[in-house]
Amino acid sequence: MAFQKPTGTQDILPGAVEKWQFIEGKARDLCRRFNYKEIRTPIFEQTSLFERGVGETTDIVEKEMYTFIDKGDRSMTLRPEGTAGVVRSYVENKLYGEPDVTKLYYIGPMFRYERPQAGRQRQFHQFGVEVFGAFDPAIDAETVALGYEYCRGLGLQDVKVELNSVGNPASRAAYRDKLLGFLMPMKDELCKDCQSRIERNPMRVLDCKVDQDKFTDAPSILDSLDEECTTHFAKVQELLTAMGIEYIINPRLVRGLDYYTHTAFEYKAQGIGAIDTIGGGGRYNGLVADVGGPDQPGIGFAVGLERIALILEKQGISTTAEKPLDIYLVALGEAADKEITTQLFKLRQAGFSAERDYLGRKMKAQMKSADRMKARYTAILGDDELERGEIALKSMETGEQRTVKLAELVNELK
Amino acid sequence: MAFQKPTGTQDILPGAVEKWQFIEGKARDLCRRFNYKEIRTPIFEQTSLFERGVGETTDIVEKEMYTFIDKGDRSMTLRPEGTAGVVRSYVENKLYGEPDVTKLYYIGPMFRYERPQAGRQRQFHQFGVEVFGAFDPAIDAETVALGYEYCRGLGLQDVKVELNSVGNPASRAAYRDKLLGFLMPMKDELCKDCQSRIERNPMRVLDCKVDQDKFTDAPSILDSLDEECTTHFAKVQELLTAMGIEYIINPRLVRGLDYYTHTAFEYKAQGIGAIDTIGGGGRYNGLVADVGGPDQPGIGFAVGLERIALILEKQGISTTAEKPLDIYLVALGEAADKEITTQLFKLRQAGFSAERDYLGRKMKAQMKSADRMKARYTAILGDDELERGEIALKSMETGEQRTVKLAELVNELK
Repeated sequence: MAFQKPTGTQDILPGAVEKWQFIEGKARDLCRRFNYKEIRTPIFEQTSLFERGVGETTDIVEKEMYTFIDKGDRSMTLRPEGTAGVVRSYVENKLYGEPDVTKLYYIGPMFRYERPQAGRQRQFHQFGVEVFGAFDPAIDAETVALGYEYCRGLGLQDVKVELNSVGNPASRAAYRDKLLGFLMPMKDELCKDCQSRIERNPMRVLDCKVDQDKFTDAPSILDSLDEECTTHFAKVQELLTAMGIEYIINPRLVRGLDYYTHTAFEYKAQGIGAIDTIGGGGRYNGLVADVGGPDQPGIGFAVGLERIALILEKQGISTTAEKPLDIYLVALGEAADKEITTQLFKLRQAGFSAERDYLGRKMKAQMKSADRMKARYTAILGDDELERGEIALKSMETGEQRTVKLAELVNELK
Repeated sequence: MAFQKPTGTQDILPGAVEKWQFIEGKARDLCRRFNYKEIRTPIFEQTSLFERGVGETTDIVEKEMYTFIDKGDRSMTLRPEGTAGVVRSYVENKLYGEPDVTKLYYIGPMFRYERPQAGRQRQFHQFGVEVFGAFDPAIDAETVALGYEYCRGLGLQDVKVELNSVGNPASRAAYRDKLLGFLMPMKDELCKDCQSRIERNPMRVLDCKVDQDKFTDAPSILDSLDEECTTHFAKVQELLTAMGIEYIINPRLVRGLDYYTHTAFEYKAQGIGAIDTIGGGGRYNGLVADVGGPDQPGIGFAVGLERIALILEKQGISTTAEKPLDIYLVALGEAADKEITTQLFKLRQAGFSAERDYLGRKMKAQMKSADRMKARYTAILGDDELERGEIALKSMETGEQRTVKLAELVNELK
């Protein structure tokens, strides 16, 4: 009986894992520079957290969650996204009590039961940031810039930033009325999804792929923003321009989740077919209070790492290559074999990456193995050398070979 | 309504997460030196994989698994340990077809529904290695040494290695008969758990905490090993001694999982109360075939990272401190504020960790914030300086202050 990985999940094997290490390492380094600290929240949470924090009428909560009853009879759900857990943690651990703005990042697996396709898995991975406690437009600009710098730092070509403001609740309510006035007369011509969404969440109708062409003359939310919203949004744009970040205003950009307010943004790139969104985010000033915390503003984004991995590949961008081995030790004979084990251990203790044969292979096969591992040096120990306390050290780059004292091998490599 | 994290899970927050980054970083660096490559397998697998790969009669499978039915009506389980998934992946991806020995490591979350206590969580984390395709005693010695070096490299004090051989299936069968001959006459005096285990798996009875004292005269498995097993085990010990790794032979060490053959080992340390095992592992030469693969030998170990974190704390070992900030920028006035945002972005692009205020705080409060973040430098920009294209740069270590050109700020810091 042979077992298979679950549909929509992946094994990341040596040879591919280095790309993931690169993608994550870039995120960590960028967050260090932007002064964001890592947070790790549980892989599963109470189901009700996502119902509240993501929104009961979203596709995620309605159709895509991995929900189960645990042995204590509680409904739990594998996290479908990162924000709800981080907000829960911010509130539960009273991080709002600290004097500085809370700037957090996370990297990890998320789970949604969707039809798997290129760049979309049931277990997928996100890098995201969340900032709590500041409504300064400088924070909106900073988060937009961080995600953009991330894509740029990875080497991605032609990444576009789309920007919008979805306003505060008052502006949204005014816009909702105007939009319904535009949409209702054409309701019967719209697709089924749109018809069911139109009254629950008319802004999401604008996102529809099918009916896109019918909305050319739809009212823009930007015309419904009140003065506070307009000023905030203008300042965000001014700062982005000052930083040299190009963006496109897209008044249709409303994001899939219900909790956004003010700034909303997405990162897009060519090369992943129908799905061209790498990730996105926005401000969610009501969410912290929604999940039981104080009235603190928040903003964040998440990018999909499967999508980034795919674009890196499609755009032919090389990620850090496999690290070559420092040294491969070859033993000829049983006494040499034991000595090699000790030397290997010493080299590794000294910080070198070092390897040997474990299959009783002949010297020629061992040298091939050293080649495959791109060893910088090989060292060969026979009975004669062992008796003299020496070993033959060969540079695989230059071919140069010399004899060194066994006791000096580690120092010779340094 | 306030939400809480699920019982037995943890939030790892800034201030604590640095310890986890340290613990994981040490594992990654050690694996580089020992030439182990990372593998990442899914968080959940088909339930039947664990029934087969961990063993249907184990506590894990009988009582502790997070099992659920997915939306496609398949039984899935959050991985309770790392080996089964890695073995499944080794087989499914035909890694056995590669010319060299397969040396893998993993770091990640595992899930068991147990009663939470110090060092034991329902979502816990392990670092583990698995080696496939080699039965050379040098590999047994290497894996034992790797785990030991890991503990040593972290700075853990008084880590003990316990070592045993549980033999091949023939030796185990012979020992089982001898052991039953010893145990059956005292069956009625044993605890309930032991009574139920005695015929299914008498070797695990020796592990019982309650009845420990009654087994002083139990036969040792080492007396039942055949010549192949004895030779292999002697060689493992010889190599460990050559490497300078101290170990204690413990013939009672049988490990909780059914699939071990030959070398079995555990790492123990003081400081975590009743549970003193950091981790352990052993050889499992039949497991790859058991889960549908070719007859390839395997060996591995896993250590519990919650336990390691706990011992580090109990033993007062300092892990890498929070990284101090390179520079904190202070703006006085609105024009300066915009310029600061641009300078901040340039500094971050140049690789520096840089921060500013987002709360409209007065200069004094901003300087306090810089202190909390342990900023190495602060730079203060007022309207006068801005007009002259300059900024005041202050070293927080020496208190020295000087004026530099705004255009030169990045270069000045280098």
